[in-house]
Amino acid sequence: MAIARPSAEISSAAPLSPFEIIKVEENVIKVSVLYPNTAGCKFDMEYYLTRHMPMVQQKLGPACKRMAGEQGIAGGAPGAPATYVAMGHLYFDSTDAFQAAFAPHAQSILADIPNYTDTQPTIQVSEVRL
Amino acid sequence: MAIARPSAEISSAAPLSPFEIIKVEENVIKVSVLYPNTAGCKFDMEYYLTRHMPMVQQKLGPACKRMAGEQGIAGGAPGAPATYVAMGHLYFDSTDAFQAAFAPHAQSILADIPNYTDTQPTIQVSEVRL
Repeated sequence: MAIARPSAEISSAAPLSPFEIIKVEENVIKVSVLYPNTAGCKFDMEYYLTRHMPMVQQKLGPACKRMAGEQGIAGGAPGAPATYVAMGHLYFDSTDAFQAAFAPHAQSILADIPNYTDTQPTIQVSEVRL
Repeated sequence: MAIARPSAEISSAAPLSPFEIIKVEENVIKVSVLYPNTAGCKFDMEYYLTRHMPMVQQKLGPACKRMAGEQGIAGGAPGAPATYVAMGHLYFDSTDAFQAAFAPHAQSILADIPNYTDTQPTIQVSEVRL
C-alpha cells in the first residue's frame, strides 16, 4: 500500500549539522470500522464491547497496539443524528503489521459482525499524524 | 443532547456491599470532523496540522482534553480509496463542556476551513466507550 507523503520533513530554513540525528518517524496506522446509522438499524453495543472487540484483540495479538470504540450520539447540526451508530479503531505500527495480523483471522472476525449489527461497516485505513 | 443509555451498569450477579463505592463513570465525548475524499478534492495537510489544529486548541483551551488527526490512505477493499481524506478529533469531558468551549469560537474556527480544504466535513459527536 503506497503512502504518498514524504517520510521525513526536513526544514530548508537551517542546514543540518552532520551530527544531527534525523528521526524518520514511522507513523502509526489506524484502522477504523465505521458503522452507518441507517434508519432502524440494529447495533448491540454490549455485545460489541464485551464480546466482539475482546475477541478481535485476542486474535490480532500484540500487533494491535491499541483499540478504541465509540457510540455515536449526535451529528453536527442541532438535532441531527450521528452519521455512524458506532466506530471502532485498531492501531498498528504499519500497514504490513495490520495485514499480517488481520489476514489469518479475517474470516472469523467478519463472521461475528452479524451477531451485533445488521449495518454494513465502512473500513478506513489512516495514518496517525497528530 | 440526550444520551440514551444507562449512566451506570450495575451487575445483578452479586449484591453490592454497603461500603462499596459505585463509580458512575462519565464517558468522554469525542467530536470527529470527517473530511470526505471527494474526487479532485483539495486538502492541505501541512496547514491543517501546523496552523488549523493548533489554532483550534488555543481557542478551545483546557476544555479540549486531547486532539487527534489522521490522513486517510486506503479503504477496506484492495485498491479502494479512503472514504475520508482526513479526520480530526477533539475530546471533552461532556457535551456541555464541548458546547461551552466551541460556541464562542465556532465562527472563526469554521471560517478557517476553506484555507486548507474545499471539502464539506461531516461532524459526529460520539461517546467514548472503549
